[in-house]
Amino acid sequence: MIRVSVVGATGYAGSELIALLARHPGVRVVGLYASERGAGRPTSELHPSLAGWRGPDVESLDRERLLASRPEAVFLATPHETAANLAPSLLAAGVHVIDLSGAHRLRDSGSVQRWYGFNPPAPALLADAVYGLSEWCNGELSRASLVANPGCYPTCILLALKPLVAWLDPAQPVICDAKSGTSGAGRRSDAAYGFSELDGNVRAYGVGTHRHEPEIRQALNLPETTPFVFIPHLLPMVRGILSTIHVAFARPLGDSEIQSAYDSAYSHAPFVRVLPAGRLPELRSVVGTPHAQIGFARLDQGRRAVLVCVIDNLLKGAASQAVQNFNRMFGLPEEEGLR
Amino acid sequence: MIRVSVVGATGYAGSELIALLARHPGVRVVGLYASERGAGRPTSELHPSLAGWRGPDVESLDRERLLASRPEAVFLATPHETAANLAPSLLAAGVHVIDLSGAHRLRDSGSVQRWYGFNPPAPALLADAVYGLSEWCNGELSRASLVANPGCYPTCILLALKPLVAWLDPAQPVICDAKSGTSGAGRRSDAAYGFSELDGNVRAYGVGTHRHEPEIRQALNLPETTPFVFIPHLLPMVRGILSTIHVAFARPLGDSEIQSAYDSAYSHAPFVRVLPAGRLPELRSVVGTPHAQIGFARLDQGRRAVLVCVIDNLLKGAASQAVQNFNRMFGLPEEEGLR
Amino acid sequence: MIRVSVVGATGYAGSELIALLARHPGVRVVGLYASERGAGRPTSELHPSLAGWRGPDVESLDRERLLASRPEAVFLATPHETAANLAPSLLAAGVHVIDLSGAHRLRDSGSVQRWYGFNPPAPALLADAVYGLSEWCNGELSRASLVANPGCYPTCILLALKPLVAWLDPAQPVICDAKSGTSGAGRRSDAAYGFSELDGNVRAYGVGTHRHEPEIRQALNLPETTPFVFIPHLLPMVRGILSTIHVAFARPLGDSEIQSAYDSAYSHAPFVRVLPAGRLPELRSVVGTPHAQIGFARLDQGRRAVLVCVIDNLLKGAASQAVQNFNRMFGLPEEEGLR
Amino acid sequence: MIRVSVVGATGYAGSELIALLARHPGVRVVGLYASERGAGRPTSELHPSLAGWRGPDVESLDRERLLASRPEAVFLATPHETAANLAPSLLAAGVHVIDLSGAHRLRDSGSVQRWYGFNPPAPALLADAVYGLSEWCNGELSRASLVANPGCYPTCILLALKPLVAWLDPAQPVICDAKSGTSGAGRRSDAAYGFSELDGNVRAYGVGTHRHEPEIRQALNLPETTPFVFIPHLLPMVRGILSTIHVAFARPLGDSEIQSAYDSAYSHAPFVRVLPAGRLPELRSVVGTPHAQIGFARLDQGRRAVLVCVIDNLLKGAASQAVQNFNRMFGLPEEEGLR
Repeated sequence: MIRVSVVGATGYAGSELIALLARHPGVRVVGLYASERGAGRPTSELHPSLAGWRGPDVESLDRERLLASRPEAVFLATPHETAANLAPSLLAAGVHVIDLSGAHRLRDSGSVQRWYGFNPPAPALLADAVYGLSEWCNGELSRASLVANPGCYPTCILLALKPLVAWLDPAQPVICDAKSGTSGAGRRSDAAYGFSELDGNVRAYGVGTHRHEPEIRQALNLPETTPFVFIPHLLPMVRGILSTIHVAFARPLGDSEIQSAYDSAYSHAPFVRVLPAGRLPELRSVVGTPHAQIGFARLDQGRRAVLVCVIDNLLKGAASQAVQNFNRMFGLPEEEGLR
Repeated sequence: MIRVSVVGATGYAGSELIALLARHPGVRVVGLYASERGAGRPTSELHPSLAGWRGPDVESLDRERLLASRPEAVFLATPHETAANLAPSLLAAGVHVIDLSGAHRLRDSGSVQRWYGFNPPAPALLADAVYGLSEWCNGELSRASLVANPGCYPTCILLALKPLVAWLDPAQPVICDAKSGTSGAGRRSDAAYGFSELDGNVRAYGVGTHRHEPEIRQALNLPETTPFVFIPHLLPMVRGILSTIHVAFARPLGDSEIQSAYDSAYSHAPFVRVLPAGRLPELRSVVGTPHAQIGFARLDQGRRAVLVCVIDNLLKGAASQAVQNFNRMFGLPEEEGLR
Repeated sequence: MIRVSVVGATGYAGSELIALLARHPGVRVVGLYASERGAGRPTSELHPSLAGWRGPDVESLDRERLLASRPEAVFLATPHETAANLAPSLLAAGVHVIDLSGAHRLRDSGSVQRWYGFNPPAPALLADAVYGLSEWCNGELSRASLVANPGCYPTCILLALKPLVAWLDPAQPVICDAKSGTSGAGRRSDAAYGFSELDGNVRAYGVGTHRHEPEIRQALNLPETTPFVFIPHLLPMVRGILSTIHVAFARPLGDSEIQSAYDSAYSHAPFVRVLPAGRLPELRSVVGTPHAQIGFARLDQGRRAVLVCVIDNLLKGAASQAVQNFNRMFGLPEEEGLR
Repeated sequence: MIRVSVVGATGYAGSELIALLARHPGVRVVGLYASERGAGRPTSELHPSLAGWRGPDVESLDRERLLASRPEAVFLATPHETAANLAPSLLAAGVHVIDLSGAHRLRDSGSVQRWYGFNPPAPALLADAVYGLSEWCNGELSRASLVANPGCYPTCILLALKPLVAWLDPAQPVICDAKSGTSGAGRRSDAAYGFSELDGNVRAYGVGTHRHEPEIRQALNLPETTPFVFIPHLLPMVRGILSTIHVAFARPLGDSEIQSAYDSAYSHAPFVRVLPAGRLPELRSVVGTPHAQIGFARLDQGRRAVLVCVIDNLLKGAASQAVQNFNRMFGLPEEEGLR
């Protein structure tokens, strides 16, 4: 049994993570931490599926007590800067860190400053961190001590795009029109996220300013000449992301070429399912699950395509991918605790 | 054209009120006021139907400027204590006041202290205020200078119950099981009212502590021996209240007796519709309208009945009833501005 | 491994059931059946959590093939009359039957005719069937060959009421005001259950005519003199039931008396949680889980109380309770496959 | 008072239309018609705002009675082929026709056959019909006897795109990612449109096969070389469309150039509001209103932009635009009946 702790236990992603870890057969949860305001909430009330679970209480975050409980791995589901400040001392103590925040996703110190608004306290970690898009990680997770768990939008968009990147027409735009549920915004005390404001409503937001945009760009590594557009939208639903991605190819492609590119990438991936050509997934096929589903439809005789990918933002987009990464770091079967 | 102002212009009820007043042919809106935080918001963005309307800007509340614009009537859609503090000086200046807050609904100074948590600054007004359940007001509105506009739950429950009160079995309970949309809670910066918390969720709240309970009791004036239960529930929808009311009669009643009691009460009421016996209204028949709909079903051979009443909490439960009352105060046709 | 089959695999309750059985460590699913229209749907698409599951295909119902696969237990999640017709031959073949339909819940043949509109083909079974409200079943499930799995509303209401029945004032009404999500109505091709009709809407329905009313009455066995009222409401959410139950006691009760009655009933029940006095559960605490939560608030100095019970209608109100009953029938731990 | 009738009175668009016409000061509604199934429904129950309205009953469609009531204008909110069959005889009788169906939107007989699946009975009408995107119609509506009221998606997309068409880079794609509420699908007896299926769900649909695609292409008249992509999505909300449109310009544009193109097009349009550069509209600003709102954000130093347009699909996307067109056909002020 691997001893793990979660910091940021009371947020939406943190609560999902605890719900997964509580059922994980290879794990013992030894500590749960939250901000002062969140601490003290009974663990069994963090998530419906934790009713009756006998885990530790949620404590106010204290670095010494966190280390004193001797975790082998710590999941950080905290604000970005908190994660940046915690990671170095945890790693120094030999603890493995899976960081669900954005603190270690961008490799460049200046980009962190620009997009996240703080100077990374340990910039060297940015190079060491493994970007944990599990299906694209190969062996490096088994040697990693710090994993930067991808953002929810990047996970959804990269899974659909990466297998096709080599075929993209560099002169044509890649356009990612993403639709997310409200839980992506976290538990907010903000009237703008109130039920009365969001029910029956949709809006685009963060155009050109969303932190997931540089993360996706970095992972795609598109040519400078390729316009890249990412427009997230907030929808009246709690969970899930559906990304509609519009691409053009350098030469016309057939269904079977696209299908085989996806097969090469995912035929052994337990949590990614690619639908037959022309069939697009709907969101609820994945809500509440650790799965992604990808579909594509060719347009203009194969010169263009629309790709649709769906995930549960709190699971494949956060907590379950963190557990996938944890499993691989510790040599456990990838699906352990996720079936 | 009667000159009117609205204080509390940026809340949900206040915004609906402005939307009604903007189309009211007998009214000129001369001032809109809000708390410091709310002021400055463009008037045309307060409500979708105000697009293109050329009304005054929303100013930070200032008693002198409010009076300087010489309103003949002021609608108060403010917090309770704000309304209690404003009303005396407005009335002293000869301004008619329609108070949508709860400040002047309870007739007894001690009850205000107990339920609203402040001492009424002008307790004499509690006796002067006309309780504006429009359909039960007869002539007193035309002589009123201060109207206490009823709460949303009381409006919904009283409209269904009052015509039948004389027939109730005094030894049997009157049970009001009410279901409200989230706009009843106002525009809240509180994670508990977030979309992520309320979608797909229901809860009872305020059992025995809701301020509308003494308001309903006062208006019903039931015998001491009659148990009265009021349980509000918060539902995953924005607008509307559906109240399910369970009553027992002192003797078995027929459908036609109940129907004729309702007819006597409402056959001339333009905004109350009573459905045929056995047919219960659904909420969406009234959402977005100034109407109430009432239905009833007899049980136990007429010894009991279930009454269902539906209203839009922001209209008949607040803004449109305020306009009904205003119309009557100023001798205008009751439906003016509401058709 | 116990061999089980499910008839009615493509409905909402049937799909949830398969999702549970697929993960049940003591079970092998040997057959899935549906109406002709439903058959052929890939098993992995019946429920998001079945992605990747290698169970049998969904076949069109055929009694001979059903028996040929030699199930030890069959779950019936079919229309009522289909279940009534299937059960006798299954039982005759020595198969255990867990019937999620209403066909075997009422003990009296005439009541089945009256409420369900068909003559029970094997009326003797009505006496043999064990009414499977798991927490109230004691040992009889281990000897049962036919279990009538309770309705969703009855489960929710009976769990809250049964521990207090002895204390009820026989002259005062028991009023059950229940609120359900739309999945309770099944997968309907009916515009009245369309999103456009139900979003933002609420309605009471089935007053005095709902089939769950005689089921609750039968299980409560109240005195003739006690009025019993059951009013279900349809709410704009997919899953879950919240029942608000209004009762009066023959003598004033204290919190601790009520609490200890619930403790006696449920302290060892793994799937029923009773909240501290005065705290009422909200629906989302149980959605997606096999749990019920019960809360109560005393009124009128303990002469009355309001009880609130919440369940997931498709789980504790159908599929997970069926698995609880199955576990007990076959001597497995009650929680097997449900944690 | 102009005498008007509505055919297709019980659908969502038809009901909204009646609600508008009932309040229109220049109109007298002389006939309401529906399919046999829909006829007989009380007019006052077609729409919440019709409570108390004294209009004609809804009759089963009968061409002779329709003409016998001597309407000067008939609104067709019927299935496409019904409209195609009705229009010629109405026009022959001198009646003005506003067709909300798609029957007369495509100018080419073969396209109608291909996209709508029937041969136009009077193909000459396709050339005569005025495509009623009101803001782009200039004077031709005043001379029109047949108006093809635009589809909901085309209205939303064309309003945003048309002012910028001259600037588009012909080698770069125009991508329209549209999000619609469920009422766009009409009142459907189809489980796939049930609340239980759509709540919390999103899906793309009709890729490459949606009938609004040729309609938008025809109205834009883009060069052959310009890829055009239209992907509609179904969202968990009842009303409204938000379209996100991705474009590239032949040369970099400044905010003021774009703004002034919109100003030229819409500064006198009472129902189109263009937001300041960089500000994107949210859906609820227009739900329940006859307004469109358009916003834009420049990307890549003005080489690209994202345009967002929001409308209420049943109003500006159907009924209120029909009334705008009617007003112009009959020389009434454009806003008559819509304020």
